[in-house]
Amino acid sequence: MNQNLLYQHSTLADLTAGLFTGTMSVAELLKHGDTGIGTGDGLDGELIILQGTLYQVTASGDVNVLQPNDQVPFATVNFADYQPEMRIQRQGRDATLQQIASAHPWQNLFYSFQLTGQFSRVQTRSVHKQTKPYQTLEQAAKEQAVFEKQAVSGTMLGYYAPQLYNGVAVGGFHYHFLAADHDFGGHVLDFEVADAELSLEPFTDFQEHFPVTSQAFLNLDFNEHDDIASQIKNAEQ
Amino acid sequence: MNQNLLYQHSTLADLTAGLFTGTMSVAELLKHGDTGIGTGDGLDGELIILQGTLYQVTASGDVNVLQPNDQVPFATVNFADYQPEMRIQRQGRDATLQQIASAHPWQNLFYSFQLTGQFSRVQTRSVHKQTKPYQTLEQAAKEQAVFEKQAVSGTMLGYYAPQLYNGVAVGGFHYHFLAADHDFGGHVLDFEVADAELSLEPFTDFQEHFPVTSQAFLNLDFNEHDDIASQIKNAEQ
Repeated sequence: MNQNLLYQHSTLADLTAGLFTGTMSVAELLKHGDTGIGTGDGLDGELIILQGTLYQVTASGDVNVLQPNDQVPFATVNFADYQPEMRIQRQGRDATLQQIASAHPWQNLFYSFQLTGQFSRVQTRSVHKQTKPYQTLEQAAKEQAVFEKQAVSGTMLGYYAPQLYNGVAVGGFHYHFLAADHDFGGHVLDFEVADAELSLEPFTDFQEHFPVTSQAFLNLDFNEHDDIASQIKNAEQ
Repeated sequence: MNQNLLYQHSTLADLTAGLFTGTMSVAELLKHGDTGIGTGDGLDGELIILQGTLYQVTASGDVNVLQPNDQVPFATVNFADYQPEMRIQRQGRDATLQQIASAHPWQNLFYSFQLTGQFSRVQTRSVHKQTKPYQTLEQAAKEQAVFEKQAVSGTMLGYYAPQLYNGVAVGGFHYHFLAADHDFGGHVLDFEVADAELSLEPFTDFQEHFPVTSQAFLNLDFNEHDDIASQIKNAEQ
């Protein structure tokens, strides 16, 4: 168990190109971390892993717990070793992300943040399960379900990736939410903190695991998928 | 020891931006692999690691063995598990690289190759040790020493990185050479095989270790270093 290492299965570019089929079991994924985010098999919902349990927030708004044999196409996980950073009160998304970004000189590292407490508003999205033949992530994201909840307590779990890794991961911040009562969550679009604790975990190492058992991955020709960066921006932000 | 994992210390983009000071000891590096390539402290020579020994080919053409306490700014290492692929005879660089690239559907993976045997011609370069304030890699590479040897036996050790990782590593092929009698080597510019065995090792995982102890790395602003891809192309190919 290496708390200095962030582990990722597959790449954002693979998702962008339409590789939505699950290629790693939940059991295998959880060997590499007890905390994380990802997407479900066939883009079926937004995933968040807290304390070793993998929650799926579907496009119908349900929150399920995935089982060891379930498969995921893309996920980022780490072993939790978050250090308390500061208390944040009555502050919107942009100011909060700016505060996280300026807390340490980590712009060239991968790191994770958790915001745990009360939120006056959280807006999330979740993507519908796709059927084959798969379209691109950008097209799938256009049909996302958007949810909003006010006065909700829970945990926002996010990752920062250096811009050099945009395409491999989402350059900048990428974060999901799960309500404390497990009835709301998803990929976060916007939020306002009421009163929450910020904690941070930096990583010295980033490990990419490629979906080598997938013929679709092995045969993927990225030359046919132009401008991955702009597609990631449209799909993930 | 994970033979499916390629380990890299620092990134090509960091080198491109002028982070030439060694930030990992040879002793630490060799914990992560017995085979590899890299560059010396202050860009002092081209490194090649074979069977756990790290050789430095300097710009004066000398081949030294680095010691455990020596520091390196950039290196890529793996534990050798090469599988025989084919015999190559009387063939130039481009045809040989094309043959390696088309041997397996690995264009989206990291993999390594070794070509061991007789070469009718090998042309290499090595970069001079730089002094502070450091210039960029592209500028340093302009002052490289170029060597050529005919009828030489030895080992060419190379890595292929997917284009998605260009900037993190050198997208495409990057390979160094060491003569069997250890009196010639370096970063390979051109070659012609006389009679050599090709062996390959694919990796399911790529682990990036960031030079987190370096303030210069932490403070590096890539926005001040435009067009890393073109600089890598000019410096490394």
